[in-house]
Amino acid sequence: MSKKNAVIGQSGGPTSVINQSLVGVIEEVAKSSHIDELFGARHGVRGIINESFIPLKGQPGELLEKIAITPAAALGSTRDKPDAEYCQKIFASFKKHDVHYFFYIGGNDSADTARIVNELAKKEGYELQVFHIPKTIDNDLRVHDHCPGFGSAAKFVASAMRGDNFDNKSLPGIKIDVIMGRNAGFLTAASVLARLHDEDGPHLIYVPEAPLSEEKFLADVDAVYSKRGRCLIAVSEGLMNPTTKKTWTESLLTNLDKDAHGNVQLAGTGALGDCMANLCLTRLTPAGGKKLRVRADTFGYLQRSFPGFLSEVDANEAREVGRAAVLHSKAKGVSGSVAMKRISDSPYKIELFLTPLETVARETKHLDPAFIAGGNNITRAFIDYAAPLVGPLPVVGAFEEMR
Amino acid sequence: MSKKNAVIGQSGGPTSVINQSLVGVIEEVAKSSHIDELFGARHGVRGIINESFIPLKGQPGELLEKIAITPAAALGSTRDKPDAEYCQKIFASFKKHDVHYFFYIGGNDSADTARIVNELAKKEGYELQVFHIPKTIDNDLRVHDHCPGFGSAAKFVASAMRGDNFDNKSLPGIKIDVIMGRNAGFLTAASVLARLHDEDGPHLIYVPEAPLSEEKFLADVDAVYSKRGRCLIAVSEGLMNPTTKKTWTESLLTNLDKDAHGNVQLAGTGALGDCMANLCLTRLTPAGGKKLRVRADTFGYLQRSFPGFLSEVDANEAREVGRAAVLHSKAKGVSGSVAMKRISDSPYKIELFLTPLETVARETKHLDPAFIAGGNNITRAFIDYAAPLVGPLPVVGAFEEMR
Repeated sequence: MSKKNAVIGQSGGPTSVINQSLVGVIEEVAKSSHIDELFGARHGVRGIINESFIPLKGQPGELLEKIAITPAAALGSTRDKPDAEYCQKIFASFKKHDVHYFFYIGGNDSADTARIVNELAKKEGYELQVFHIPKTIDNDLRVHDHCPGFGSAAKFVASAMRGDNFDNKSLPGIKIDVIMGRNAGFLTAASVLARLHDEDGPHLIYVPEAPLSEEKFLADVDAVYSKRGRCLIAVSEGLMNPTTKKTWTESLLTNLDKDAHGNVQLAGTGALGDCMANLCLTRLTPAGGKKLRVRADTFGYLQRSFPGFLSEVDANEAREVGRAAVLHSKAKGVSGSVAMKRISDSPYKIELFLTPLETVARETKHLDPAFIAGGNNITRAFIDYAAPLVGPLPVVGAFEEMR
Repeated sequence: MSKKNAVIGQSGGPTSVINQSLVGVIEEVAKSSHIDELFGARHGVRGIINESFIPLKGQPGELLEKIAITPAAALGSTRDKPDAEYCQKIFASFKKHDVHYFFYIGGNDSADTARIVNELAKKEGYELQVFHIPKTIDNDLRVHDHCPGFGSAAKFVASAMRGDNFDNKSLPGIKIDVIMGRNAGFLTAASVLARLHDEDGPHLIYVPEAPLSEEKFLADVDAVYSKRGRCLIAVSEGLMNPTTKKTWTESLLTNLDKDAHGNVQLAGTGALGDCMANLCLTRLTPAGGKKLRVRADTFGYLQRSFPGFLSEVDANEAREVGRAAVLHSKAKGVSGSVAMKRISDSPYKIELFLTPLETVARETKHLDPAFIAGGNNITRAFIDYAAPLVGPLPVVGAFEEMR
């Protein structure tokens, strides 16, 4: 069997475990008999057309293990979305370097890139097997039960919220925490895992799938604050306004960045949190006329890049989907996206399988309506779904009298 | 020896280890022969005047160990600053409950509260020993080498920055991270610990002690970006403008909250980060005319409340200062603030001692000018000072070609 070369790239917003998948591929390629050299494309498809490669075979195992636990894309990432001309350049590069296997780690946009490259290769009769390896903290890939990267980001969010619940109890007031997730509320929903007792925050959870008016928001906060003297709120950066059908952030900012995929940049700004805090300050009047204490935090890029705080399950699965992609590539002519299927919640058990690229590309998945309650809460069904992916959260304790 | 009762309270912005000090006091009181009941005042001095106490003797050890690793104030905190009338109410409460020892865990404002209560007690001839137990993530107490709470917050900041450096390498651009610290730049300076190599961020570090003009900021960013194609910036929420002599945030916002101590609320808003990002977007033009990728994160309350990520040294020292306060209280007539003195950097060694309350109260400490370089960087001297307090940071790795 003649060996052929492979390229691997990382794309889109990185995660804390995207390098686990990279290392999984590197390890499995080292054991394989069908792949010769493995080129790491610097900054995704851009590295392919610029022929900017890092040879990955023979990298020392000790370094690879360090890289595996390092957040963000060790090869660099990109937001480029290849069109037909771009793909021609990719082929030219692949041909030049005898590349017949392409592993692309990314989300739905990256799956779409993989799909386009694969289809153009077929059209041109160039023998190429393309594998999409999933990663996204948004957890919004169709077909996939869940996505590597989500569990660790969810662990960060739920832990941060668990700590913030105690901070909010210490100095009571209204606290708004803005969580990543442009179209899907999985990560925001994961804040529910912070709760240990009924009285624990987050007391209100708002996801993009349940559009929220200013009036409902204020009424919700008022109800919680009146009952508990405090209110901890988890809100998705992609929160929608039911009237304008736009995100709250889009209504606030006029000059938002858009990437090559047309995605509006909602992260990296404190505007939504500040707006919601301001609404509370100006429109709510607590009993007794005391001035409200209102604060907002935007968890920001830490959700995907905080080091040393991984979900173990997530890290292991990210490694395994990388390995599986290489194993699937042994079968001639096969391409696809490596997906996880859940066999059972308890004990938690998954199976890997290959799904066609087009089933994952482009459109995203949303929270199951059964996961959302009353437009401001998350259900037990979601907890059962998400808890095994996140693993144990930091242990905390409180005096009975202070709960 | 007749036993008398004691009160303990927690005050000001909580930290991740403020409960370690509380548990240190509880443990040592249990062993003591001079203190009978230990009352935990709910929400600091407010709990004293409201006679809202939790009996702390006999709380199960297992619960106490959980509380010790829980961020935020287990007894609740307060921003109240007692005046003469307020203090009369405190005495009334102390007399009623036969309280002759008062332990107050807090920062410089809390030390001032302790000082006021102590002086009024003396004036009235009421036998009272008052102990200030330090805590502040700002690390700005005079006399104290450093303060419990700082090391853990610094570990969070340095780790977040280390992760963000990789995120910023993955998708290069300008990234601004806003860090807590109203008057003192210790926590922002701690971001320097993230660096492993010369090329690592943070590339620019701005502290309140080095006022910064818009022009210098833009010139600094331009220089780094031109050289590296990216720029990671750590900036203190208390950043000063050299012309207006006000903070950047105060110039931005008109309706900022003030607490009872007159401190302006600079945290809990994304305004400073958004303003600096906007400055870069509107005033910098990179070579080639490509649109800049600029993002801002405000680390926010997570810096003081993120659970399960403590500095071990910090946690131990927080426990020890609590214990020491109780031990010092054995000596009749003695009051003071429990402080740490550094014996050596390497091996790291400290000694505890008692300093008069007035030496710690009110005024804060600032970064030593020898810790700041060029108005935009932090020196080796600071690293030597801070590294032992923070302990090891998460391990990371990078391909040689991607450094």
